[in-house]
Amino acid sequence: MSDSKSLHLTAFMRPVSLHTGAWRYPGSYPDANFNLAHLKSFIKKLEDAKFDAFFMADHLAVLNMPVDALKRSHTVTSFEPFTLLSALSMVTEKIGLAATASTTYDEPYHIARRFASLDHLSNGRAAWNIVTTGNPETAKNFGLDDHVEHSERYKRAREFYDVVTGLWDSFADDAFVVDQESGIYLDPEKMHVLNHKGDDLKVRGPLNIARPVQGWPVIVQAGQSEPGKQLAAETAELVFCSPRDLESAKELYTDIKDRAVAAGRDRNHLKILPAAFIIVGDTVEDAKAKRLRLDSLVNYDSAIASLSIALGTDVSGFDPDGPLPTDLPETNASKTSRAGVLKLAEEEKLTVRQLAQRYGGYSGLAFVGTPETIATDMGTWLDAEASDGFTVVFPFLPQGLDDVTERLVPELQRRGLFRRDYEGTTLREHLGLPRPKNQFFS
Amino acid sequence: MSDSKSLHLTAFMRPVSLHTGAWRYPGSYPDANFNLAHLKSFIKKLEDAKFDAFFMADHLAVLNMPVDALKRSHTVTSFEPFTLLSALSMVTEKIGLAATASTTYDEPYHIARRFASLDHLSNGRAAWNIVTTGNPETAKNFGLDDHVEHSERYKRAREFYDVVTGLWDSFADDAFVVDQESGIYLDPEKMHVLNHKGDDLKVRGPLNIARPVQGWPVIVQAGQSEPGKQLAAETAELVFCSPRDLESAKELYTDIKDRAVAAGRDRNHLKILPAAFIIVGDTVEDAKAKRLRLDSLVNYDSAIASLSIALGTDVSGFDPDGPLPTDLPETNASKTSRAGVLKLAEEEKLTVRQLAQRYGGYSGLAFVGTPETIATDMGTWLDAEASDGFTVVFPFLPQGLDDVTERLVPELQRRGLFRRDYEGTTLREHLGLPRPKNQFFS
Repeated sequence: MSDSKSLHLTAFMRPVSLHTGAWRYPGSYPDANFNLAHLKSFIKKLEDAKFDAFFMADHLAVLNMPVDALKRSHTVTSFEPFTLLSALSMVTEKIGLAATASTTYDEPYHIARRFASLDHLSNGRAAWNIVTTGNPETAKNFGLDDHVEHSERYKRAREFYDVVTGLWDSFADDAFVVDQESGIYLDPEKMHVLNHKGDDLKVRGPLNIARPVQGWPVIVQAGQSEPGKQLAAETAELVFCSPRDLESAKELYTDIKDRAVAAGRDRNHLKILPAAFIIVGDTVEDAKAKRLRLDSLVNYDSAIASLSIALGTDVSGFDPDGPLPTDLPETNASKTSRAGVLKLAEEEKLTVRQLAQRYGGYSGLAFVGTPETIATDMGTWLDAEASDGFTVVFPFLPQGLDDVTERLVPELQRRGLFRRDYEGTTLREHLGLPRPKNQFFS
Repeated sequence: MSDSKSLHLTAFMRPVSLHTGAWRYPGSYPDANFNLAHLKSFIKKLEDAKFDAFFMADHLAVLNMPVDALKRSHTVTSFEPFTLLSALSMVTEKIGLAATASTTYDEPYHIARRFASLDHLSNGRAAWNIVTTGNPETAKNFGLDDHVEHSERYKRAREFYDVVTGLWDSFADDAFVVDQESGIYLDPEKMHVLNHKGDDLKVRGPLNIARPVQGWPVIVQAGQSEPGKQLAAETAELVFCSPRDLESAKELYTDIKDRAVAAGRDRNHLKILPAAFIIVGDTVEDAKAKRLRLDSLVNYDSAIASLSIALGTDVSGFDPDGPLPTDLPETNASKTSRAGVLKLAEEEKLTVRQLAQRYGGYSGLAFVGTPETIATDMGTWLDAEASDGFTVVFPFLPQGLDDVTERLVPELQRRGLFRRDYEGTTLREHLGLPRPKNQFFS
């Protein structure tokens, strides 16, 4: 199966579902976000289904929403990514382990070291999702009154990447002689002292851990802003993005890959996996009914506020169970956002309540259908060069995950769109990415 | 078995041995410091022997010694503590997991969160060894030119402790309502926003994880300086120290416990475990011979430099295989240090080479003998109120660990000096420590 013709799939597992109502869905584990036994079973099922990676998003502040929304949110307590993924590395053998770590609120020495350690513990399965941390509340947990400004965050992120990758290259692969007879443990000629002095960071090195099994853990990036796309093009090997539809995905795909080539990189060494919310049903109607049921668990007051923001006008006064009036006043809201809402309302014939709960639940790219229709859609995206696979978002657990691993994946495998077994042992091998050369040693 | 009459034992496992020659000892694993399979087998053996905890020391800089010593050091590469202990938590059920984390080079939000996560993953087995990081080279890996001054480090450490424990108390134990029917996940009245604003730290909170299983992970402290002892007395529940002999241990024990009482604490809620290097032999002579063999693996050039420092005079010109001359010139070296060296040379009739290699290897408190003599010594320390147990340092691995778990521990158990089984499941229960009340919720 040639890499260019098959999908890569990662599971986006934190919060357990991005859907705010998921923990209330019938049969779901309300504490799944914070229950180790469940998380172990999830990752084992994903490995059995040959997923490329298990991807832990993260956040560094609880107070990122009004208290009335917060009290309904299952995101308020969760395991810390490095401790969790390290634990999960012991119950799995092949699946990649991607953790989010902030370049704004952490130190490159710590980040380089932890990913290197996770990569060694897991025999080459670690990936670093570089985030600059957009939530302005985070600053207050780290000694600052105000959030670090966007362009400054991206400038620091770029430098941070240089430092972390430089630290990973502190030792040549054959630096550790370990000769019990002579007593020589290390060849100092094969140790590089980084001595980085940049605008934002000053780090001497070397790192206190051998070079990672993968050379460098896989670099993941999710930014869609201009600096985010540029950072991804220059550094990322796995891009996680949120296009709304096939056309915008194709544009983004081409844009980022072209930028990567302009930066001197091979366009195949950067895999683009849009986030896709997947609901599998016996029929398309069945899948849509599941989605409506899930959406109905979203709190209406919170949801109508989200919808009002998307439309740029207060719609809380309309009849929740009637259709959205078509003669809404023109406002300063983003036209794209507004047009998207109106198109959705029209296409799916949603009431105001249903539309609001869709926006309060999960309103991004979704594949809602049977294993066959979803496999066809995914194949279409792959053929259209709109993606190299998908970052799968499960609607509810465990059933939403089981539906993907037990029903969708076998259908993808039948069509030759997804691997039947891992061909290698490291995440780089799953993704068809080369092991980076050590920049200081040949 | 009443707690006051029995020993607590922890294993000090990083570097794998503090002895610089350990990786060269016959039968040792040269890469044991960095071999997960071995570390798994070590912690399982320690759990089978009912040790209280597995204790990972740490360092944040490689360049803490001259290159000629560095190239002989097995400490240059190792797993990062949180990732390693999280992994090891999955192959054990009862043994405590103590990690070192620096209050000088990390953020309280990160530290609080990681220990809370490790405590949840391990069902209440985490402990935090508070260090202020004495190695001046570390600053250069964290953006600073100069090391943070000693008293400033300890001042920040004390405030850091307040912030971390305050963050652990962010949520009442019953804060998470998780009512699927009503959609209420969290009771906001049971969430505390810390809003800490101190001299060195400003942290809002709350933490993004439920209160740890133990309430607070166990607090460990190793300082022996005046501010170190005071910090231990005010905060520590487990004190790891390095007295040279029984008399100095009794003084230190009484000093720290009296300070704890003066700070309003119960003297039994602070356990003092001196570091003890243990070599078990068939006879006392056999054990001493093992030690000489181990010491002989220390590089002489590095060793003679250590000895010269301890004596305050250059002794590299003496015959390595003769006795240390008794008429050394008076110098400005610490009299205690000098007297210790001379006493050791006299008592054990060591040559200059052997004495140097003892200082270059491990020169702290050691119990070298048979299971019976060591058990007797340990009982004497316990009865004399010189310690509540020991932080065991293994001379070499795996044999030095097997000798302790298979030979010494059974002898201690026969004498009623050590538990035959765990009575509880959390580290606090092993140590006889209470679960701290939440300072913000009753």
